[in-house]
Amino acid sequence: MEEIKIVIAGPRGRMGSEAVKLVEETTHFTLVGVVDHKHDGWSLKELDGFNADVPIYSDIDKCFFETKPDVLIDLTTPEIGKIHTKKALINGVRPVVGTTGFSEDDLKELQQLTSEKGIGAIIAPNFAIGAILMMKFSQMAAKYFQDVEIIEQHHDQKLDAPSGTGIKTAEMISAVREEKQQGHPNEKELIPGARGANFDGIRLHSVRLPGLIAHQEVMFGGDGQTLKIRHDSYNRASFMSGVKLAVENVMKVDLLVYGLENIIE
Amino acid sequence: MEEIKIVIAGPRGRMGSEAVKLVEETTHFTLVGVVDHKHDGWSLKELDGFNADVPIYSDIDKCFFETKPDVLIDLTTPEIGKIHTKKALINGVRPVVGTTGFSEDDLKELQQLTSEKGIGAIIAPNFAIGAILMMKFSQMAAKYFQDVEIIEQHHDQKLDAPSGTGIKTAEMISAVREEKQQGHPNEKELIPGARGANFDGIRLHSVRLPGLIAHQEVMFGGDGQTLKIRHDSYNRASFMSGVKLAVENVMKVDLLVYGLENIIE
Amino acid sequence: MEEIKIVIAGPRGRMGSEAVKLVEETTHFTLVGVVDHKHDGWSLKELDGFNADVPIYSDIDKCFFETKPDVLIDLTTPEIGKIHTKKALINGVRPVVGTTGFSEDDLKELQQLTSEKGIGAIIAPNFAIGAILMMKFSQMAAKYFQDVEIIEQHHDQKLDAPSGTGIKTAEMISAVREEKQQGHPNEKELIPGARGANFDGIRLHSVRLPGLIAHQEVMFGGDGQTLKIRHDSYNRASFMSGVKLAVENVMKVDLLVYGLENIIE
Amino acid sequence: MEEIKIVIAGPRGRMGSEAVKLVEETTHFTLVGVVDHKHDGWSLKELDGFNADVPIYSDIDKCFFETKPDVLIDLTTPEIGKIHTKKALINGVRPVVGTTGFSEDDLKELQQLTSEKGIGAIIAPNFAIGAILMMKFSQMAAKYFQDVEIIEQHHDQKLDAPSGTGIKTAEMISAVREEKQQGHPNEKELIPGARGANFDGIRLHSVRLPGLIAHQEVMFGGDGQTLKIRHDSYNRASFMSGVKLAVENVMKVDLLVYGLENIIE
Repeated sequence: MEEIKIVIAGPRGRMGSEAVKLVEETTHFTLVGVVDHKHDGWSLKELDGFNADVPIYSDIDKCFFETKPDVLIDLTTPEIGKIHTKKALINGVRPVVGTTGFSEDDLKELQQLTSEKGIGAIIAPNFAIGAILMMKFSQMAAKYFQDVEIIEQHHDQKLDAPSGTGIKTAEMISAVREEKQQGHPNEKELIPGARGANFDGIRLHSVRLPGLIAHQEVMFGGDGQTLKIRHDSYNRASFMSGVKLAVENVMKVDLLVYGLENIIE
Repeated sequence: MEEIKIVIAGPRGRMGSEAVKLVEETTHFTLVGVVDHKHDGWSLKELDGFNADVPIYSDIDKCFFETKPDVLIDLTTPEIGKIHTKKALINGVRPVVGTTGFSEDDLKELQQLTSEKGIGAIIAPNFAIGAILMMKFSQMAAKYFQDVEIIEQHHDQKLDAPSGTGIKTAEMISAVREEKQQGHPNEKELIPGARGANFDGIRLHSVRLPGLIAHQEVMFGGDGQTLKIRHDSYNRASFMSGVKLAVENVMKVDLLVYGLENIIE
Repeated sequence: MEEIKIVIAGPRGRMGSEAVKLVEETTHFTLVGVVDHKHDGWSLKELDGFNADVPIYSDIDKCFFETKPDVLIDLTTPEIGKIHTKKALINGVRPVVGTTGFSEDDLKELQQLTSEKGIGAIIAPNFAIGAILMMKFSQMAAKYFQDVEIIEQHHDQKLDAPSGTGIKTAEMISAVREEKQQGHPNEKELIPGARGANFDGIRLHSVRLPGLIAHQEVMFGGDGQTLKIRHDSYNRASFMSGVKLAVENVMKVDLLVYGLENIIE
Repeated sequence: MEEIKIVIAGPRGRMGSEAVKLVEETTHFTLVGVVDHKHDGWSLKELDGFNADVPIYSDIDKCFFETKPDVLIDLTTPEIGKIHTKKALINGVRPVVGTTGFSEDDLKELQQLTSEKGIGAIIAPNFAIGAILMMKFSQMAAKYFQDVEIIEQHHDQKLDAPSGTGIKTAEMISAVREEKQQGHPNEKELIPGARGANFDGIRLHSVRLPGLIAHQEVMFGGDGQTLKIRHDSYNRASFMSGVKLAVENVMKVDLLVYGLENIIE
């Protein structure tokens, strides 16, 4: 495969440091520089936990000018990610961005930039390919099974219930299935909440226990059968195969892709 | 093993007809008669679906007098079951009863009868040994894992949520564990009901889907680990090993046992 | 929806009787006749367990001539199914066939007949949509996860291990994934068979227990995550939604479709 | 609860450093010293990753003499663990030992020491309470369900199949259940290994996939039902609740306990 030259923004973050590892371990990926608001001018290997001898830049434009990368992997914050994405496109660098928080207007602007420049960009709120497949398969299955419940399970330090992935899954299902209020029309909750959260008739259940990490099961039921699709995420490494896929795909497209589900067949 | 002579009350019911099969298939069990409000004086084999050539009685006292059984298996209704249980004990027949609906006073009276007569009696609201074990193990595990959630799953024709077994399990756990309000103290339901029903701080989730039969998973979580105990009931045959166990045990005890969990070690 | 007039061959079989129920319960489906080698000239409702007042034919050509159906649902045996399928096409009736045992030559001949007549035909070795989706999703996931193991679980009366569905799933995965011998290169079976059956490097495990019905889980593993796709089949009703889908689709296509996976998107 | 004064041997190991955390976080536990072959005379807090200001000893006898602990937690190696355990008992310190490799003779000698000294000792090859409970419950369930299969699942870097816990579970079940060759007497492996490893008629299946950590499910099947007991271990923290339980129990017993299953009720 052809070599892809890569800059990573946010190399010291938890996702960023995994991305550095990924790029180093992938034969046809070459790390040419990193962008960090600290340590401008140092080599990355001078920082604890890194071996790569590539320059650190605080000025992203300078970084692009000097290192001539094909792709920017941005794993910073929503605010900085937005600025970086735009600057990358302007400089002819294809961005792969893992942050959320882009508005409709932001996306429109970026879309225009990609078509002006004739290069691709990928923004992915979730890089875990297993989770993306779970959502995609759930949407496909919902055409054949109207009845579905979602059980998501996380550690008990999580504040929100249902989880973002749980709600996203329900939205994707709801977009394609014939609407239905599930369960028996006369069903009765002996204790409130037993039947879970109601999202367009789909029920979501949030389990929170110490020990758990991040798990979700989507259960479909029909006459005499059930179909279950389950994703278990054990650690941050689960995101890296998605980053790799995005880098490889961003080289082949010439438009803005929002969400990995759109590059998975 | 010694032969046990058995009368079954309610042979045409769904549980009763399974019990007839069980007795016929068990070497040391002998069916000597059945009690039914219809068909008095017929042979059971004259009824559709039966082969056993044993007399049908509408009068249970006459049945006991003529067939001299060791054990009565009663699978009728709560009202009739109560009368049958008492009559069995008075006649020196050990009852194994699958109906619910006995009051505290009923149980006291039956207890006294068993001690007067010096014979055993077993009343079991649930004969599925797997379900009994699930509840018993859950209670044991709760001493070591304070955090637990219950996910019970049934077909979508079920009206009540949570299920009786779900609530019974939570009660048994609650009786032994140090009380705890689970989840993060600041957790927030983005959609009401997401965190399920709250029973003494334990969360119960009720899934209802066509295709499902009767399933329950009890999940315990602790530092870096989870322990799950799950029972799946696929059909009525699941009750029969419990009936068999009860018949064998009722011959060995000389008091009233309420709940199969008390004869399981 | 437009009415579809249907003839069922094999109405007294286990699948056939379910199909009669399906057609009766589906608003836009109308049963116009049945084909049976017995009871020619009777009405179906004269047979035990049926209510539909439609004629029984032993001669399928006469049946087609008199009832003018749109679709034949054939749930007989492989030998008879083949003959029926051909006769249906010749008579301009679209066949939906649940039997297996068609040779390559048979399929070619049928394909030619469909194109001559300009009508569709669907042959489906497996009508359980959930199982079809499980296989299809597994094939899709295998592009992103090279490592996969299949655990299929059946009652202990099953003779063959692995199951047909298990092997079919492994074949479908093997057709798309980059080949890989899974597990550690130096792994050692302390007891032979521990690592299961080896199919092109994919491991299959066959669980056989009383109580189980028909279940399969396909597990994919990657860095820090697992993806599981599981189908549980509890009874024969699970096939009927697939029959319904096939009937609806056979009206829209004008060629031979082999396998429901090809009409599922 | 009464204060328990503790010395930890092996504080820099993976288990040992977790144990230091555990003792610091437990109100009624007090760390009074650590034993390490390096850094004699330092304070533990001088080492990276530690805060506790307690002395490090290379000489365990001196440590016991100066710090007067109630309990020694030994998380070193089998060889050193053996010596430490004996020295602890001689010094009147109750040992909690996580290493394996004690011979029958070693255990006999230690047993005698505990009875001479009138103090307890606990040796535990596995401290994960969830795993211990899984094995214990499996043994209990085997009295009621003769048919059982074990599916253990680990990351694909594991060399041995089945896992030690898998074999231990099969041994515990085998010790109590009526022997049975499971599956259909005429069952046939279409691909060798499909039915897994055979241990006294019990089948074990070893799944190996990247992403997995350490999981085991024990499945029991009976008429119309299944009972499943599953343990998932996500990280080393899972051992610490077992260490805590052992420390609390070693204060109450006056004999040698081998295996946590013997102090769990």
